[in-house]
Amino acid sequence: MSLKPGRVFSGARPTGRQHLGNYLGAIKNYVALQDEYECVYSIVDLHALTTLESTQDLRQNSYEMALDWLAAGLDPQKCIIFIQSHVPEVTELHTILSMVTPLGKLTDLPTFKEKARMHPHNINYGLVGYPVLMTADIALYRANWVPVGVDQAPHIEFSRETIRSFNFHFNTNALVEPQMKVTNVPKVLGIDGQQKMSKSLNNHIELAATPEETQQRVLSMVTDPARIRRTDPGNPDVCNVFSMHKIFSGSEEVEMINVECRRAGIGCVDCKKRLAKNMNASLQPFRDRRADFDSKPDQVWDILHDGARRATVIAEETMHDVRAAVGLAERD
Amino acid sequence: MSLKPGRVFSGARPTGRQHLGNYLGAIKNYVALQDEYECVYSIVDLHALTTLESTQDLRQNSYEMALDWLAAGLDPQKCIIFIQSHVPEVTELHTILSMVTPLGKLTDLPTFKEKARMHPHNINYGLVGYPVLMTADIALYRANWVPVGVDQAPHIEFSRETIRSFNFHFNTNALVEPQMKVTNVPKVLGIDGQQKMSKSLNNHIELAATPEETQQRVLSMVTDPARIRRTDPGNPDVCNVFSMHKIFSGSEEVEMINVECRRAGIGCVDCKKRLAKNMNASLQPFRDRRADFDSKPDQVWDILHDGARRATVIAEETMHDVRAAVGLAERD
Repeated sequence: MSLKPGRVFSGARPTGRQHLGNYLGAIKNYVALQDEYECVYSIVDLHALTTLESTQDLRQNSYEMALDWLAAGLDPQKCIIFIQSHVPEVTELHTILSMVTPLGKLTDLPTFKEKARMHPHNINYGLVGYPVLMTADIALYRANWVPVGVDQAPHIEFSRETIRSFNFHFNTNALVEPQMKVTNVPKVLGIDGQQKMSKSLNNHIELAATPEETQQRVLSMVTDPARIRRTDPGNPDVCNVFSMHKIFSGSEEVEMINVECRRAGIGCVDCKKRLAKNMNASLQPFRDRRADFDSKPDQVWDILHDGARRATVIAEETMHDVRAAVGLAERD
Repeated sequence: MSLKPGRVFSGARPTGRQHLGNYLGAIKNYVALQDEYECVYSIVDLHALTTLESTQDLRQNSYEMALDWLAAGLDPQKCIIFIQSHVPEVTELHTILSMVTPLGKLTDLPTFKEKARMHPHNINYGLVGYPVLMTADIALYRANWVPVGVDQAPHIEFSRETIRSFNFHFNTNALVEPQMKVTNVPKVLGIDGQQKMSKSLNNHIELAATPEETQQRVLSMVTDPARIRRTDPGNPDVCNVFSMHKIFSGSEEVEMINVECRRAGIGCVDCKKRLAKNMNASLQPFRDRRADFDSKPDQVWDILHDGARRATVIAEETMHDVRAAVGLAERD
């Protein structure tokens, strides 16, 4: 892997079965990156604890997400896929980095203020340190690149500053300052046509849903709100169903809908049925692969455990240098 | 060790060579406890990072403190002596406990306010979490008892609450709630006769000082400030030299000084020379043992590394239960 032009790290909270927004916004990009870069992809289960959501499904959610990642094309021969807590060195680096992180920088971050607003009765010490734990993830694997949407720029800037601060304070280059890899991903709206697709808003379409469930969700999608009757002409430019057609349907069909919708030549139900059909056809190979992995759970866990072993090799190299830079006494 | 009535944990920051205050206030008690309890004594090097003091001497300071502990009678056959960072599970538990620790409880602690006042430009996230890391130490080793002075009661109460909170939130009894073991230790004043003996105030007498250095320090001790001339009668009740005589001198000599000082029958210089002589005689066996350990540094490191191995066995048992209670996916 050493001929690749650098290492990419990304982590995602184990939210269970992934949806179209996860796929189009992140996973598809993960798959593309694995051919070009050394990629380390982490299911960040410790991050899931920061807001103390119910953790009884943590293990299952991690497994379901791994299934989706693998079925979507993440190849353990090409990249490292693992569960964050299986490489506990991240908590060691997190604790050490917390010593060079001013409290005020954390409480000033917009995402902290947002979370504090959403969970006013649950502002935990760990929640405040979310960006420190994220920095520890990135730094532990000495990532050169972190793929992010532009909205996450402040977090990466925080990580860069924290890493610089560590290196400066301990007069070392043990940690590597990462670069943002801004990716142009479509903003995927939920079936409400208003908000970003999200499991918590229940406006999502699961990748692993059955064809019937998928059709049902597509049929409930909100279209151009100005088109009230079948005979009203529609405006595809403001219709989320049309946005999805551009992703899942062929160019001829997209062009046909673009024309016919505007002159009420096609109704919304017909249009949605076409989308559901194309979406299901597009997702079928994914679903087959997913079912195949799911029939061999031991193999999936082996992949994750093997990933953790490979991640540990990198982590131990980093921590060896970090401990020496800090001046901690050598271990046995 | 299982027939002993519970486990004691205590940690001390690696401040290098220990002084009389450390010995009389803590180490002596450590030695007494090891016969009755399972004792786990930790040199808490990670805690030393919270105020980002210079860390270049961290390794040497840990070693010097271990020498003093061993020479003072801590017996690795009876207790576990190790360096905190050598059992990194403590950072894992620290990270997990941070998720059940309200930020406000930490910033409300008197010691945080005091530290924030002393280090106004260095209020790090890690400094805020000091009591969480301390709780992780205690909980990781499932200590039943924590020896403390009464001034530390709020910290142990914080630890107890955090442990209860973890057990309640995850519906488990993975962590053990410790009890305070309040010990009646003398408050040892420094040679200034005013403030608690402390390295940072440079009013201390090192256990490992030479007889000459010790005599020099004793001769500079502040005595009864009302006794200005040799012919003035003194008051031993307010004299720190007399307090030290009660520790290091025989009862007949103490009684003689108690009488002669009050009638100016003995001068302060004579009185101090007697103290220095007795102190040196009392410390000589300690100094001999210390020099012996220091001539075999590999053996000292072996003791610390072996302690870390034994501590790890306990730590892994605890973390196994903690990970299961939280719901993290099993490791390989």
